[in-house]
Amino acid sequence: MGKLKRNERVGAMSRILTSAPNRIYTLNRFCAMFDAAKSTISEDVELLRGVFGQFGLGEIETVAGAAGGVRFLPKPRREDALAYVQDLCKRLGSPDRVLPGNFLYIQDILSDPPTLEVLGAIMASPYYASQPDFVLTVETKGIPFALMVARALGVPLVIARRDHKAFEGSVVTINYISGGGQMKTMSLAKRSVVDAQRALIIDDFTKDGGTVRGMVELMREFDVEVVGMGVMVKRMTAGAREKEFFEKIRALVQVEDEMDRENGAKVMPAPWLSE
Amino acid sequence: MGKLKRNERVGAMSRILTSAPNRIYTLNRFCAMFDAAKSTISEDVELLRGVFGQFGLGEIETVAGAAGGVRFLPKPRREDALAYVQDLCKRLGSPDRVLPGNFLYIQDILSDPPTLEVLGAIMASPYYASQPDFVLTVETKGIPFALMVARALGVPLVIARRDHKAFEGSVVTINYISGGGQMKTMSLAKRSVVDAQRALIIDDFTKDGGTVRGMVELMREFDVEVVGMGVMVKRMTAGAREKEFFEKIRALVQVEDEMDRENGAKVMPAPWLSE
Repeated sequence: MGKLKRNERVGAMSRILTSAPNRIYTLNRFCAMFDAAKSTISEDVELLRGVFGQFGLGEIETVAGAAGGVRFLPKPRREDALAYVQDLCKRLGSPDRVLPGNFLYIQDILSDPPTLEVLGAIMASPYYASQPDFVLTVETKGIPFALMVARALGVPLVIARRDHKAFEGSVVTINYISGGGQMKTMSLAKRSVVDAQRALIIDDFTKDGGTVRGMVELMREFDVEVVGMGVMVKRMTAGAREKEFFEKIRALVQVEDEMDRENGAKVMPAPWLSE
Repeated sequence: MGKLKRNERVGAMSRILTSAPNRIYTLNRFCAMFDAAKSTISEDVELLRGVFGQFGLGEIETVAGAAGGVRFLPKPRREDALAYVQDLCKRLGSPDRVLPGNFLYIQDILSDPPTLEVLGAIMASPYYASQPDFVLTVETKGIPFALMVARALGVPLVIARRDHKAFEGSVVTINYISGGGQMKTMSLAKRSVVDAQRALIIDDFTKDGGTVRGMVELMREFDVEVVGMGVMVKRMTAGAREKEFFEKIRALVQVEDEMDRENGAKVMPAPWLSE
C-alpha cells in the first residue's frame, strides 16, 4: 500500500487521539504509523486542532518537552456545556420524575453512555490543571458518571465499597455520618491507592454532603490529597449541616428542595457553568 | 468562514461518529453542518471507512433506507482482539494477583477506562446483530465493564440492585441461589425496563454462573428476551452446577480453578476469540 493522504491520516488520528483522552501520543508514533515526516504530522495536528475548535469538538493540545507530544482533552466550549446542562435541567424538571417521598428520578440519565460521556467531560474540564491521579466514588449509583469523568481525565476509577469483601485483599474501613444522621461505613482496598496521590471525588447526587464528606475522610486515611469534589445533581437543602463544606462541592445541576408531583422540581445549571 | 477542506471534514466526522458508537447519523446532518453536497459527504465516509479498516480502528457502516445514514461500530479486527486479550492474560497470570483464599485480583483492570473501552468493544462485537435494547448488570464490580459494553452497543445500562431503595420507585425483587449455595436477592426498578425488550447480560466475573442465572430469572419477570450473557473473566470450576448454562456464558478470559501464590493463575483467551 502507498503512502496515506492527509485526509486519511487526519481521520485516523482523530479516532486515535479522542479514544484515549488526556493521553500523550508522541509525534514519532504517528510518524512511524503513517510513514510520514514529523513536519507533516505537525501540520495534521494543527489542522485537527483548528477544526475541533471550530465545531466545539474538544481541544487538541501540543505538549512540549522530552515527554511531549499531542493529546486530546474533551473540554466542551463554555456555551455548549451550558446549553447541554440547560437541556438536562429541562428533562429533570418534568413532573413525572418526582417519586413518592419527593425523590427525583435520575436513573435513566445515569444509564445512558453518550449523555454520561458529555456530562463527564463537562465535570472533568475544571480539573485538568490539578492533575488528579484517580477519580474516587462509592458504590453504586455514582459509578457510571464517575467512570466517564475518569475517562475524560485519562485516570483510573477507584470505587469504595459499602462492605469489605475478602477478595480485594486488605482494606481500610471508616465510619461516617450520612445525610440522615446515621452511622455508615465505607471501605477501600489498600492496594487501590498509593500514598501522596491526588484524588478527585465524584458522586451522582448529594443532599447534604454526607457521603462526599465520608470519601474525604477515607482519603485522609490514605494520605491522599483531594483536589476537588463533584456531583451531577445537588439538592439545595436549607438546613444543610456544614454549609461551607457543602458549597465546595461542584455540581452540574442544582435542584430546589421543594418539589411536588404536579409541578415537578425546579432545576437549574450550577452557577460556575455561566461564569 | 469559508468552506471546509476535506481534511477538516474528515477529522471532525471521525470525532463525531466515534463518540457515539452504533448511532446513525444522517448524511444530511453532515451536509448542513459542513455546507457540503451529499455526494461530497459520501466520499468523505468512504475515505474514513477505508482508513479505519486499514488501521483496525473500527467499522464505518452505511445504513440504507428512510432511517439510513452512517454509523460507527467499534469492532476490533479478530487478530487485534485476540492480541489484546492475550496481553490481558499475561497481566492476569502474574503471581502477585493471587490473593489469600485463592481469589484473583482484577480490580485494577476494572478501573482503567481505556482498557475497559477496548474490552467492552470486544465483548459487544458479537451482539450487534441481535440488537439488544439494553445491557443489564448487577451491582457493583461489573458496572464499569458493563457500561463500556453498553457504550459500544449504543444502548443504556440497566443496573439491578442487591437491595431495594425507595428512591427508584416500585421494584421487582427475586431470590436466587448464588455460587456458594446461599439465597440472595436482586431487585430492579419497574421503570427501568419495558416489556418485550431485549437484554444483553454482562458481569465482570463468574465462577459457576449463579449471579448470571439470577439476572436471567429477573429478566423473565419483566418478559424480556435475553440475547446473550457475557463476563470478562470466567473461572473454570470442574464441579460447576448446570454445566450447559455455564458454557453458554461468553467470557473474554478463562482462568483455571487451580492457582497459587507462587506460580499465579493459568489464564487464557476464551476459545471464540480465535475461531
